[in-house]
Amino acid sequence: MPLHKLEALTAGNFYQAIRIRRALLSSIKDTGDNCGRSLSDSVLPMYHYDYSQVQGRCAENVIGYMPIPVGIAGPLRIDGTSYLVPLATTEGALIASTSRGAKALNAGQGIHTELLDDAMTRAPVLHFPSLQHAAATTKFLASTQGRQILKTAFDSTSAYARLLDVTPKVVGSAVYLRFRATTGDAMGMNMVGKGVSHALATLPRYSTLCPSLAHMQLSSLSSNTCTDKKPAATNWINGRGKSICAEATVPAKAVETVLKASVDALVALNTSKNLVGSALAGMGAGGYNAQAANIVAALSIATGQDAAQVVTSSNCLTHMEKTPDADLKISVTMPSLEVGTIGGGTSLSSQSSMLKLLGCRDADAAYGANASRLGRVIAGAVLAGELSLMSALVSQDLIGSHMQLNRK
Amino acid sequence: MPLHKLEALTAGNFYQAIRIRRALLSSIKDTGDNCGRSLSDSVLPMYHYDYSQVQGRCAENVIGYMPIPVGIAGPLRIDGTSYLVPLATTEGALIASTSRGAKALNAGQGIHTELLDDAMTRAPVLHFPSLQHAAATTKFLASTQGRQILKTAFDSTSAYARLLDVTPKVVGSAVYLRFRATTGDAMGMNMVGKGVSHALATLPRYSTLCPSLAHMQLSSLSSNTCTDKKPAATNWINGRGKSICAEATVPAKAVETVLKASVDALVALNTSKNLVGSALAGMGAGGYNAQAANIVAALSIATGQDAAQVVTSSNCLTHMEKTPDADLKISVTMPSLEVGTIGGGTSLSSQSSMLKLLGCRDADAAYGANASRLGRVIAGAVLAGELSLMSALVSQDLIGSHMQLNRK
Amino acid sequence: MPLHKLEALTAGNFYQAIRIRRALLSSIKDTGDNCGRSLSDSVLPMYHYDYSQVQGRCAENVIGYMPIPVGIAGPLRIDGTSYLVPLATTEGALIASTSRGAKALNAGQGIHTELLDDAMTRAPVLHFPSLQHAAATTKFLASTQGRQILKTAFDSTSAYARLLDVTPKVVGSAVYLRFRATTGDAMGMNMVGKGVSHALATLPRYSTLCPSLAHMQLSSLSSNTCTDKKPAATNWINGRGKSICAEATVPAKAVETVLKASVDALVALNTSKNLVGSALAGMGAGGYNAQAANIVAALSIATGQDAAQVVTSSNCLTHMEKTPDADLKISVTMPSLEVGTIGGGTSLSSQSSMLKLLGCRDADAAYGANASRLGRVIAGAVLAGELSLMSALVSQDLIGSHMQLNRK
Amino acid sequence: MPLHKLEALTAGNFYQAIRIRRALLSSIKDTGDNCGRSLSDSVLPMYHYDYSQVQGRCAENVIGYMPIPVGIAGPLRIDGTSYLVPLATTEGALIASTSRGAKALNAGQGIHTELLDDAMTRAPVLHFPSLQHAAATTKFLASTQGRQILKTAFDSTSAYARLLDVTPKVVGSAVYLRFRATTGDAMGMNMVGKGVSHALATLPRYSTLCPSLAHMQLSSLSSNTCTDKKPAATNWINGRGKSICAEATVPAKAVETVLKASVDALVALNTSKNLVGSALAGMGAGGYNAQAANIVAALSIATGQDAAQVVTSSNCLTHMEKTPDADLKISVTMPSLEVGTIGGGTSLSSQSSMLKLLGCRDADAAYGANASRLGRVIAGAVLAGELSLMSALVSQDLIGSHMQLNRK
Repeated sequence: MPLHKLEALTAGNFYQAIRIRRALLSSIKDTGDNCGRSLSDSVLPMYHYDYSQVQGRCAENVIGYMPIPVGIAGPLRIDGTSYLVPLATTEGALIASTSRGAKALNAGQGIHTELLDDAMTRAPVLHFPSLQHAAATTKFLASTQGRQILKTAFDSTSAYARLLDVTPKVVGSAVYLRFRATTGDAMGMNMVGKGVSHALATLPRYSTLCPSLAHMQLSSLSSNTCTDKKPAATNWINGRGKSICAEATVPAKAVETVLKASVDALVALNTSKNLVGSALAGMGAGGYNAQAANIVAALSIATGQDAAQVVTSSNCLTHMEKTPDADLKISVTMPSLEVGTIGGGTSLSSQSSMLKLLGCRDADAAYGANASRLGRVIAGAVLAGELSLMSALVSQDLIGSHMQLNRK
Repeated sequence: MPLHKLEALTAGNFYQAIRIRRALLSSIKDTGDNCGRSLSDSVLPMYHYDYSQVQGRCAENVIGYMPIPVGIAGPLRIDGTSYLVPLATTEGALIASTSRGAKALNAGQGIHTELLDDAMTRAPVLHFPSLQHAAATTKFLASTQGRQILKTAFDSTSAYARLLDVTPKVVGSAVYLRFRATTGDAMGMNMVGKGVSHALATLPRYSTLCPSLAHMQLSSLSSNTCTDKKPAATNWINGRGKSICAEATVPAKAVETVLKASVDALVALNTSKNLVGSALAGMGAGGYNAQAANIVAALSIATGQDAAQVVTSSNCLTHMEKTPDADLKISVTMPSLEVGTIGGGTSLSSQSSMLKLLGCRDADAAYGANASRLGRVIAGAVLAGELSLMSALVSQDLIGSHMQLNRK
Repeated sequence: MPLHKLEALTAGNFYQAIRIRRALLSSIKDTGDNCGRSLSDSVLPMYHYDYSQVQGRCAENVIGYMPIPVGIAGPLRIDGTSYLVPLATTEGALIASTSRGAKALNAGQGIHTELLDDAMTRAPVLHFPSLQHAAATTKFLASTQGRQILKTAFDSTSAYARLLDVTPKVVGSAVYLRFRATTGDAMGMNMVGKGVSHALATLPRYSTLCPSLAHMQLSSLSSNTCTDKKPAATNWINGRGKSICAEATVPAKAVETVLKASVDALVALNTSKNLVGSALAGMGAGGYNAQAANIVAALSIATGQDAAQVVTSSNCLTHMEKTPDADLKISVTMPSLEVGTIGGGTSLSSQSSMLKLLGCRDADAAYGANASRLGRVIAGAVLAGELSLMSALVSQDLIGSHMQLNRK
Repeated sequence: MPLHKLEALTAGNFYQAIRIRRALLSSIKDTGDNCGRSLSDSVLPMYHYDYSQVQGRCAENVIGYMPIPVGIAGPLRIDGTSYLVPLATTEGALIASTSRGAKALNAGQGIHTELLDDAMTRAPVLHFPSLQHAAATTKFLASTQGRQILKTAFDSTSAYARLLDVTPKVVGSAVYLRFRATTGDAMGMNMVGKGVSHALATLPRYSTLCPSLAHMQLSSLSSNTCTDKKPAATNWINGRGKSICAEATVPAKAVETVLKASVDALVALNTSKNLVGSALAGMGAGGYNAQAANIVAALSIATGQDAAQVVTSSNCLTHMEKTPDADLKISVTMPSLEVGTIGGGTSLSSQSSMLKLLGCRDADAAYGANASRLGRVIAGAVLAGELSLMSALVSQDLIGSHMQLNRK
């Protein structure tokens, strides 16, 4: 019996299944130096957890769970609402620093956010016998009729996924098609994948309209032009998930008293570090910020997002300028926040509890409003993190605060 | 009393501190729509956890912890040793898929890895009155004497950090200096930051040797040319942390029976997706792979790494070719694995237990050998993940397996 | 009298004006070491040239002209027509090498090309008092009414320029708008700039429909998101000018006899060099080729294109695969060919003569057909260049041929 | 007899050879629509030119030459010397605009430049049977002995080329080696290629020291990690050719009177356009400028440089800031200027005459000083071009000046 089917054997007694699995794994005989076979008496937590939520959905061959400390940054005022921002992290000083940024932001009018675009993507690659076939197909798919065929098929696969458009790229005899769709409160990757799969499957029946379709071969449902979990410029430029911008004005007095910095110094450092420094580092995607990934990762883990999507979700450009009143105007531009409030890790009760804390599990919310709210909170929290870290750098206490809180 | 100091008030009774904090946060009066103030009765776990490990080191203002399911992929044979690979994830099918890849890899000679470079970086930015001053300083620092001064000062700050070299970039009157250092088993960011800070602080005393040093102004200890947690080409090209390559040959028979794929189809898809598809997506850094970030994220969370560093650590180029014997040769090239086995989140007992499982907490290991081993395991696990997902795409069962295991 | 107005003084005697200008420039008194003041007796050609074509249009303060040798590569069969391809270059072996590639391509069915997109761009940046204003404006401009207003104003400025769409990016209080338009046979930068300028100038009058427009400030007509003459991913991903793909199948026999190479070796090297090698070099834009820029530069200079646009026009991905018949299928994907056959340097008679040679000055051609033909010829010539250089590398005679033809 | 050997037939009568070639090309019978076969009576210039300089060195199958107008911008003061800057261009207003920038720069102390690095590169790719072999070879080549072997062999091939270092990248069983060398006054690509070729050819004889060398296979002398004529981040980050920075301070008064702009507006636009705008466009390499490629292209054509190298040579970051005295400090950072003053197109007398004008053909100059001077002049001229175009954008007269001077 395969190890990952132990739960069936123990009739739903998950603890027993895990104990047996740990024991069996510890005793495996294998070639070579079997290092670290100490699972039986591992201190990794395994009790006090409801594995029925995980079984068959979120993980396989489970041996326990990894606890990540969660702290609260804030309250942080975003679009008129005060949020307690949960951060799951082991990086000392991150929560305290974000809270400091929140305090300075609250001293003004708080943060204003705008949702500028919202579309999940999936891009299959098709192969044809020749460039002519490839080009003829893309022209057909770009026609009114072709677009309608794709949309009807795609939309039929879900009550939530709605196809927006399809952008083709022809490379010799191959066609890369980037589908963009709204997906409500779901992050939507699987939903879109299902729609794409079905839409492509229906195409061959239209080969009388476009003979090249008879020669179409689906090479892969994902071609990396999507792009999922890789540092692609296409996400930075054309967006993926939520495209959100957050802006705030911080009174000069708060910059001085709360952040121990000055507006001029912050603006100058933003240019030296987040613009020029990033440019020098060769930044094909959106790394024009100080630490967006820190906040995105901590909030993602706290709310059940896919942690690997931090790669794309952390795309961010931080901008600062001095207002005519000598205050600090700061914004973060985040075009590719891949977030959801249903499905995947968000269905686990612990993760869900943090979404509830943020008001992102409102059953009465409009289509997609919960996920958009989560996106706005992430952007707002990133703004707080940027403000605080940049201030720490300006006042040169970065090492000090890390040394104190993060003894290494 | 500030909320984050409650632990002092409760005299080390962490549970009491958290209960009080939850209650107080739930009652905060604030302007606007105070959404989700339900911390008092939140189901977020808080008991059965030793907060003394966290307090003052890994998180502030703590309200509990987030449990992430951990499953075992493997065993996976790497450099002659069989590893049980712990993955902390909520993405259904990921663990099972990686195990499938491991099975196919074990069917051959297993994975061979090479550590090709090892250096953590930190890059401050300095300002001078003019380009002349900036250039004169970089020339001095590049001289034998200048390099010795920097190294002596840097190395004096730690028993582990050892400066390798410093690469300057001059932009007008500013100088960006990228320090590279070995840091033993620590990921090393703070260690290097401390060394850089001290090395720069000693420079002004050498202004008789290089008069421009008298005019040096440290603008920021980090200038983004480091580059930490951003998709910078500099890490992809010049490396950061461990640079590791892992290679294996998978017998054609295992490709067919275990992976339900063919060598030819895999090689063709690797070109279409991981090379051409990524090229089309605008890939300034290392996104030439199928899902490296998934494995890097899951292993990072399971072993106490900084989850935000997935951005850089997941840089990976996956290569496949058909051998003269018609088998599959596959490799992953990962030049910027930022990993450590001491410090930060690795000091927590749960996280540490998974490092022990991997044999990465060996007190008798040579300088840096534990962290290098962790890097090799990550590269090996990424290889398994690549092999399995690419095979799933070739056999078009991606949506199916996700639908089954990850009901969304 | 300023030096650049000498032509007015000499009443149209251009030679006299140039002689005087050379003399005056040679005698300028200035601080410092006046190096190289030898214009009076310079061997730079000045006679036998019709400066009336240049005056007030293509260059100022003229002292003569630089002759660039022009040779013919080909004939090269593209879409059923045989072209003599003029290359203006000083790089020995380039013309001969391209001719060799043409010979091999002609041995098959010749080259097939497809024009997949055609749009010149210009992207101004606007500033507003706040993110709210910026977002409100972009929403208005994206509405049916807003789009119609922009198009009506834009299209009124030219009989040729036709607005296709406008893509906004919001960064805090700023809006970057990327206008895309067809421009007939003109490369179209100035035409589009004029249209954008007028369209923006009309916007304030619609502030009753969108109050934020009253606060709009045009910061710059070009914001670098266009992007002109810089290695931007946006051009590579979203196109600029003509997007053209060219494909051909070369019989295995021609590969061996004409190119002294093998299909297998070429396919393998294309992966090692044009895909993996370029990936390793950090290629955010389209440098996935062997020498596209060489052919683009030589054809651009020969046909009066803007030589600085080689930066973007040379974006190219070269793809090779072995067909089921064991022949070589090769393609080049060039999404950003910025070319025109009227205006700018193409109006000069020498440059125009080479456009005529290519059949690209046909007065009866359809809207844009001359410029599209030029684009197809460039893509075809690039294909020939790729094929030949890759073959030379495979057979290791690169250095030899350069040493022989390019004695340095 | 092949067409390209006509010069041999006509016994050095080049005009006759060209006339015959034109006639023969015009009469070629070929399949398809032979467009534009009008070479016999083409107006492309062919007389008054010394083809003996071209024959067998710079071009093949020659039919004449393309005249490019040359105008003078400046004088422009760089490092205390006043230069007349020759620009070969057909883009109206470019020369006048650069002159305007020069005038403003001369109003201050002129331009100061620094040469920060100088190395031409070539990167072959080698293949081995396995990763172990690949890694063992790179370790050997990185050893003191390995480095000495490469240097001795490399340096023996030329009196000018001197190997600096070799950086390896291992990708599975392949090794990419980036050689860097100084090349005196030559641009140096061929020189370095010759050295690399010889160095690699000697390696197999050291297989007793490193057994893996016996299995080495040279796949290609160029692997695209060099990187020549492609928008690679490696050139932007690690440099290629000359790395030069140029800086100047322009008095506020000159900004206003000469440039019709203000310091504040210029600094603000530099951030909006050259930093933020470029960041939004996805700039993996050095496109953080307004029009560097225009000046680089025009100066390259005027001085016999390889026009296709504009792709890399135009990498540039333009920086502006307000000084404490309220003047404008501006700099351009250009890390990859691929320039030479001997060899290739520079050997032609017309091109050479412009190098003489710039003082870059000084026979008594130190090793590499002529080429460095050329690099400094290009950087200085780029600075003038940036200053002037940015000022035009600020004062919104871009379209106007183009409309007037460049009637399209």
